Amino acid sequence: MALEWIGYVAAVLTTAAFLPQTVLTLRTRDTQGLSLGMYSLFTTGVACWLIYGWVRGDWALIAANAVTFLLALCILVIKLSNLRRDQLQ
Amino acid sequence: MALEWIGYVAAVLTTAAFLPQTVLTLRTRDTQGLSLGMYSLFTTGVACWLIYGWVRGDWALIAANAVTFLLALCILVIKLSNLRRDQLQ
Repeated sequence: MALEWIGYVAAVLTTAAFLPQTVLTLRTRDTQGLSLGMYSLFTTGVACWLIYGWVRGDWALIAANAVTFLLALCILVIKLSNLRRDQLQ
Repeated sequence: MALEWIGYVAAVLTTAAFLPQTVLTLRTRDTQGLSLGMYSLFTTGVACWLIYGWVRGDWALIAANAVTFLLALCILVIKLSNLRRDQLQ
């Protein structure tokens, strides 16, 4: 159907969305308002999408989720290192 | 293939991930570390997934993205209202 291109727009937007968040978090290191639960569940979920893409041999799924995985993992690592620093203080 | 259930696990995790973030943001109202770019792109992207689900008649896609849309929109509205409050001060 003609409207199916909207799926590609959706995929690009929901993948690209994590770029400004990663840039902001890398720059400010402010993870106070970021939920550890969210980034734990989300990073695990995206890893599952990656495996699913590999099982299905779907390279679009693999590519989009490989990018999102790296971005979400980056935010999760900063959140965890901030939590660790706060506990040591 | 036997491993295809991992797609459902992935969908549940990446959808459920926004719940702890929404709860945290509603409770603390701390959106300093949340990227406006992320929530603008993400909410728009999820709205596109909703339209795509409707075009394809895919109810799983519609249900998962309707939940994520409401959660992401909630965070976006709090972020925008905090930005507006800061500008007025």
